[in-house]
Amino acid sequence: MDEYYMHEALKEAKKSYKADDVPVGAIIVMNNKIIAKAHNKKEKNKNAIEHAEILAISKACKKLNTWHLEKCTIYVTLEPCLMCAGALIQSRIGKLVYATNNEKFGYVESIDNILNDKKNNHHPIIVKNICREESQILLKKFFKDKRN
Amino acid sequence: MDEYYMHEALKEAKKSYKADDVPVGAIIVMNNKIIAKAHNKKEKNKNAIEHAEILAISKACKKLNTWHLEKCTIYVTLEPCLMCAGALIQSRIGKLVYATNNEKFGYVESIDNILNDKKNNHHPIIVKNICREESQILLKKFFKDKRN
Repeated sequence: MDEYYMHEALKEAKKSYKADDVPVGAIIVMNNKIIAKAHNKKEKNKNAIEHAEILAISKACKKLNTWHLEKCTIYVTLEPCLMCAGALIQSRIGKLVYATNNEKFGYVESIDNILNDKKNNHHPIIVKNICREESQILLKKFFKDKRN
Repeated sequence: MDEYYMHEALKEAKKSYKADDVPVGAIIVMNNKIIAKAHNKKEKNKNAIEHAEILAISKACKKLNTWHLEKCTIYVTLEPCLMCAGALIQSRIGKLVYATNNEKFGYVESIDNILNDKKNNHHPIIVKNICREESQILLKKFFKDKRN
C-alpha cells in the first residue's frame, strides 16, 4: 500500500510542478483512508509556510477536529525540512513515509535526523525510499527546466 | 521600541489566554510599522500548525505578497519551538526578538540553538529577554489555572 499512497502524493507533487513550485506532494492516511492531500504552494501563494506537509497536516487536523494525528501516516515525496519535521512532532504524527532525500534541506537524514533526537518528545516511525526514483526524476526535471 | 512591540505581542498572548490556549503572541514589524499580529490558536482551532509565529509569518507574507521577510522583525512572547524556528528560516526573517525562554520546547537557546547552526542557510539576529517577566507571569498564571 505504501507505493499506492506515494503515487497519490506524486500526483499532488505534479500540481506544484505545473504551478512552477518545487514539486512536492503530501498525503495523510488514517485507517487506510486518505484524509488530506496537499502540494507545495510556496511560490504560487508567495508564502513561506505553505509547504506540502504543513498544508496536509492543517487539513488533516481540520478534518479530524483534533491536533493529535497519532493514528495517521503522512506520505511525502521529499524528505521534510526543519519546519516540516517540527510540524510532524507538533502533530504527533504516527508515521512518516517519504520518497527521496533532500540533500540541502532535509532534516530526517540529510542534514540531521531530528525526528530520532532524544531531546524531542515525539518520534514517529520513519520509512524511506518509497517510489524514490519517480520523485527524483520529477525533481530533477523541475530544476533542469528552471535552469533553461 | 523593542518593549513597545513586545507589549503588542503580549496583548496578542492575552487573547490566547482568554481562549484557553497557551498564551503566546507574535507581531511582525517592518520599517517601524506592524504588518502582522497573531496569537496561538492551537487548542481553539484544534490545529497543530497554528502557533503564533506560523500565523504571523503567514499573515506577513500575504500582506507583503512575498515569502521573503528579510527586512522584518518578529516579536514573540516565548522562545520558538522547532517548527517555528524552521519557519523563521524558511521566511528568511531578519530578526527575532523574544521575551522568555521555553525550557521544554525552545529551539533557540533551551534545547538547542538551531538558528545559529551553520548547517542552516539563514541566521537571523536574535535578541532575548525583552519584557521577560511579564511574559513569564502570564504563562505561569495560565499553567496554574490549568492545574486548578
